[in-house]
Amino acid sequence: MTVQGGTWIDGRKATALPLPDRGLEFGDGLFETLLCRGSHPALLSYHVERLQCGLDTLGFPPVLPLVQQHLVTSLGALEDCPDRWFALRLTVSRGGGPRGYAPPLEAEPRVLITVTPLERDAREPLPPAELGEASLRWGEQPALAGIKHLNRLEQVLVAAECRRQQKDELVVCDQQGQVISVGAGNLFLVLGGELVTPELSHCGVAGTRRRAVIDRWAPALGLAVRQRPVEPAELAQATELFYCNSLQGLRPVASCGGGRWDRHPTCEALFRRSLEDLP
Amino acid sequence: MTVQGGTWIDGRKATALPLPDRGLEFGDGLFETLLCRGSHPALLSYHVERLQCGLDTLGFPPVLPLVQQHLVTSLGALEDCPDRWFALRLTVSRGGGPRGYAPPLEAEPRVLITVTPLERDAREPLPPAELGEASLRWGEQPALAGIKHLNRLEQVLVAAECRRQQKDELVVCDQQGQVISVGAGNLFLVLGGELVTPELSHCGVAGTRRRAVIDRWAPALGLAVRQRPVEPAELAQATELFYCNSLQGLRPVASCGGGRWDRHPTCEALFRRSLEDLP
Repeated sequence: MTVQGGTWIDGRKATALPLPDRGLEFGDGLFETLLCRGSHPALLSYHVERLQCGLDTLGFPPVLPLVQQHLVTSLGALEDCPDRWFALRLTVSRGGGPRGYAPPLEAEPRVLITVTPLERDAREPLPPAELGEASLRWGEQPALAGIKHLNRLEQVLVAAECRRQQKDELVVCDQQGQVISVGAGNLFLVLGGELVTPELSHCGVAGTRRRAVIDRWAPALGLAVRQRPVEPAELAQATELFYCNSLQGLRPVASCGGGRWDRHPTCEALFRRSLEDLP
Repeated sequence: MTVQGGTWIDGRKATALPLPDRGLEFGDGLFETLLCRGSHPALLSYHVERLQCGLDTLGFPPVLPLVQQHLVTSLGALEDCPDRWFALRLTVSRGGGPRGYAPPLEAEPRVLITVTPLERDAREPLPPAELGEASLRWGEQPALAGIKHLNRLEQVLVAAECRRQQKDELVVCDQQGQVISVGAGNLFLVLGGELVTPELSHCGVAGTRRRAVIDRWAPALGLAVRQRPVEPAELAQATELFYCNSLQGLRPVASCGGGRWDRHPTCEALFRRSLEDLP
């Protein structure tokens, strides 16, 4: 850990989490992974809005003012390295409580922030990715779909499978076999001249970069995005494929199943537009 | 916390969890809740076997000898209160690791044990429970079904709903609307003279007391248990309903939806048999 990195709990440097904590016990909490340049996070408002959506879903008490206060503290520690890139993981757990699943009526959530320096300059595009197909399928849970909660064992299993397959990412379907996303990112297809991304009403995470493509970057290029169910066979029919997440930004896909793509003009144009939203 | 209670991490008394920890970050781990009388846990072999099944599913390194060693340490602290009942929560997290979902190749799991005194004498039967119906349905994930992993947000939401409904427990269905369990326990029906419990191939937790009913207690009474899909309408048709978990044991159901039950001869006979397996 460099001098710039570290972990803060409730605004104070920490190396250990007080117990009990329902984040550990049940995954009772949420997180966000923010790309930062020095003390400046990218697309902060999108992260905060998704977090608030998750806090509402899980019935947390109002904690956003505290989150923002602690974010300022941790980001302040990065002011000395304005040109370095960091991953900032913001975790909000429901905190302690008595034994058992029932959340305490008077919960006192904890805010954990961990900062890790990144090697890569986020302004440089990543090489096109080789995608495999995950044997695991996302479980379907409309009550938790979209939000970024701490129950991420499925992502852990997909990441382990991805390493075994020696791919950059794996395409993951839902239990019905419809395409939802990659293991740690959202998927877009250029299909019949249209930009398409799987709809996420029953599983998946509604990524901040996915939202930026839909709300900002595609419209800036005169493109609309259609959110709809996607069949696996449509991947090979796409003229272009890319995925996105907060740390990798937009990454074109070189291959997936039988499909190969040498040109990625849409992804490249969106990537150029996305640079305007980097700090 | 009384003098007998407390938390141990890797065999040492602790009040905080070293960070980073993937149990907190992703729910990357497993747990067991053991009923103990003094230093003697009930149905230990069932807990250990389910834990091992979960460790295999998640691809943990061999950690069971360590778990058993740390269990001995924590249980040893309860020797002075041989007649007190305790809940012992055993948590195995994958431990620390670099940023991201991919589990470290050389993981060093952590073993957390928390002991909480119980007020109730586990030999005394609980009063029949009033059951409601959960609006949440369990997500379906065959890759994680049966094991007791740390991703328990669904149970947290059901417990919160149970409190709002002012019931003792809620019946929870899967996404297809088939009955699976209650929020924190497995469900049994006496139906046409047969003992029936929902099969758990795609969701649910394979409880230790469920296994004891199937493998030991029902056979001791000359009863077989059928594991099969259960329709919600079958609940009202049952001549008897009960649920079970490690701390409550077997608990008869007084009411559920339109159904009411005054007599629980099967549950009572199983309960009497279950006392033989209490420490």
